[in-house]
Amino acid sequence: MAEERSSTQNTGALKASRRGFLQAAGATAVGSALGYSVPLGGDLVPGALAQEGKAADFLGSKDIDALIKHSGKTYETHRSRIGTSVVTSNDVFYVRANLPEPDASIVADRDAWELSIEGVKNPGKMTLGDLKKLGVHTVAAVLQCSGNGRGFFAHETSGSQWRVGAAGCAIWSGVPLKTVVEAMGGAVDGAKFITGTGGEELPKELDPKKAMVERSVPIDALDNALLAWEMNGEGVPLAHGGPLRLVHPGFYGVNNVKYLKKVALTEKESEAKIQQTSYRVRPVGVKGAPDQPSMWEMSVKSWVTNPVKTSSGKVQITGVAFGGTKPVSKVEVSTDGGKTWKEAKFVGPDLGQFAWRPFVLETELSSGKHMLASRATDADGDTQPEDFPPNHRGYGHNGWKAHAVEVTVA
Amino acid sequence: MAEERSSTQNTGALKASRRGFLQAAGATAVGSALGYSVPLGGDLVPGALAQEGKAADFLGSKDIDALIKHSGKTYETHRSRIGTSVVTSNDVFYVRANLPEPDASIVADRDAWELSIEGVKNPGKMTLGDLKKLGVHTVAAVLQCSGNGRGFFAHETSGSQWRVGAAGCAIWSGVPLKTVVEAMGGAVDGAKFITGTGGEELPKELDPKKAMVERSVPIDALDNALLAWEMNGEGVPLAHGGPLRLVHPGFYGVNNVKYLKKVALTEKESEAKIQQTSYRVRPVGVKGAPDQPSMWEMSVKSWVTNPVKTSSGKVQITGVAFGGTKPVSKVEVSTDGGKTWKEAKFVGPDLGQFAWRPFVLETELSSGKHMLASRATDADGDTQPEDFPPNHRGYGHNGWKAHAVEVTVA
Repeated sequence: MAEERSSTQNTGALKASRRGFLQAAGATAVGSALGYSVPLGGDLVPGALAQEGKAADFLGSKDIDALIKHSGKTYETHRSRIGTSVVTSNDVFYVRANLPEPDASIVADRDAWELSIEGVKNPGKMTLGDLKKLGVHTVAAVLQCSGNGRGFFAHETSGSQWRVGAAGCAIWSGVPLKTVVEAMGGAVDGAKFITGTGGEELPKELDPKKAMVERSVPIDALDNALLAWEMNGEGVPLAHGGPLRLVHPGFYGVNNVKYLKKVALTEKESEAKIQQTSYRVRPVGVKGAPDQPSMWEMSVKSWVTNPVKTSSGKVQITGVAFGGTKPVSKVEVSTDGGKTWKEAKFVGPDLGQFAWRPFVLETELSSGKHMLASRATDADGDTQPEDFPPNHRGYGHNGWKAHAVEVTVA
Repeated sequence: MAEERSSTQNTGALKASRRGFLQAAGATAVGSALGYSVPLGGDLVPGALAQEGKAADFLGSKDIDALIKHSGKTYETHRSRIGTSVVTSNDVFYVRANLPEPDASIVADRDAWELSIEGVKNPGKMTLGDLKKLGVHTVAAVLQCSGNGRGFFAHETSGSQWRVGAAGCAIWSGVPLKTVVEAMGGAVDGAKFITGTGGEELPKELDPKKAMVERSVPIDALDNALLAWEMNGEGVPLAHGGPLRLVHPGFYGVNNVKYLKKVALTEKESEAKIQQTSYRVRPVGVKGAPDQPSMWEMSVKSWVTNPVKTSSGKVQITGVAFGGTKPVSKVEVSTDGGKTWKEAKFVGPDLGQFAWRPFVLETELSSGKHMLASRATDADGDTQPEDFPPNHRGYGHNGWKAHAVEVTVA
């Protein structure tokens, strides 16, 4: 494997020294001593998980060799394992859990799972079996953690130090939430949000509002929201929220509530901590508050996925690009850290505005080091910025420079 | 689960009695006593494999609960596990092997795999690592065993008694064979076929021509042929021919040579038995011969995938439809065994002419038994026939009546 490390142009001294430390120690897990639950240098030790052998039940059929472990329930896909097949296999799909998952028995009899539907004229409960009678719709959509790219910020951030792999593109099947709402008489007057509640068991010692996963998004999302029971042709795996997940195409991962036990059309946003103060974008050092922007729609983003190992000559530089809620219209690739750019070609079928598009630039590379960068533009003409301003929790990074990757050509 | 059994209108007395025998015995594997390597009634005992526990290494991350076992290397996807997500997850994808697979070490260092390219002006060898420098292309294509539907023929046939599940739709990434041929100076004069050779080790006691997997298809297929290293976003799994598989979109499975070690542009078809006399369509009782049609391009086909378990009322009848090398343009669904038909809607993104399209018909079902059938039409206007004539090996069945499925509504 060619040397892969992120651009250091805009990563500060702290991170540089931590990376150096990890490399020097050959460390795969440093942990709490540095205040991180994670090895920063995940990308630097590909395959380190393989030695752990068979994945835990929660991970199901995951290919742990394709994953960077941030914690026992938190795994990132290696940059080099993202591929060009449009979809991300469930076996290599990243995992992020806010709470311990429910017992696996809930995916043994999927159709028995119960969902409460509230904020409609005729509220009530439906089983997944009932939902399947109402309609079928299939959409390809990128799922991405709000903190994907957090590891590229220069400032100190808590949370998993994701680099590029807390994202994947999946094909989801289920029933449109709109169809269910209409079947129950339509929305109550004054509804302004869709509020989804996860079915995890809450730790008894905690205030439910502090622990529960309950997220609200603006009601406009009803046009695309899906109650999904299938992910890439399988029942949604337990690690991904099966048997039933709320999918908001184009919205950050946290809004796509797992183990969905209640969905409500509400006048106000959820009072849960995860809505009120978490997942809020604010300056470094400032506490989260409800008047700050919430991590809802994703912005345009791309990255190179194959830090090529090669000798000099012709090479295919590949990556993925997406526009959040908008189609991605263009991707440019640079092999000199952003001094010059060439337009890349999209690869494979277009799965719609919420999917990502693999891209490729065929070019030649001479011997030596090259900094590979990509820069995507969405259908509204918005282009990834060179840098992305720091924010307290390290959310939403889409600066192209930090996502660049250096390769050494023999 | 609602009762699922195939239409009996055109299955003969022999099969009916065998099915009865198996049901009466509660058998899951009858085996050689009846001259079959397989339990006929696979569909009748869903989940029977689960008790076998962890899948063998060859099966990798397969969900054995989604599969009907025909032999240790031959697995069919349950009708009810095909889903509506456009792609078929590798975890539930059918498996069919003509020979024992090579050692798993070949997928440990994928880029080292060597391919010989012959029948070009400058023949030679390339590693998979070399191939990856030449180009990247991604195509969604149905893979289907020639014998898919064999279990629906009334006459006695050897081979796995596949019903609907020896087929799946995958997204394949690799380099176009055409790009590789051009890089090696173009085809030699007089080339009429693309001949792919598998890398399996041949049993020493057998004449190589009798044992080897080497298939030829007409050279027109060069427009779409792919040397694929990725399947649904993962390196092609060992069970599916990784690290390198020849993919001929629109052609039956056997032509998509696994563990591809040689590809040649040839004047004649391969002399291997698998080309000369196997996979030839001929009347019942007639031996295979080179002048009979070879199992090349697939024909238009569809089937219902969710034998609904439901009470009376609204229901979503789903299925998959594809046109082989042509797009599928229309699917009709019948709930009365073909007396009346309604046009179904396609579900999800269109992944191109070689992919299948999930479909859905929203309708109402009253209490009682209903025979659900589907009938697809391709872009040339070819429609699935009601019946499909018997042929010696039971290839190519696309008659809609036999693929129908009866459900009992409470």
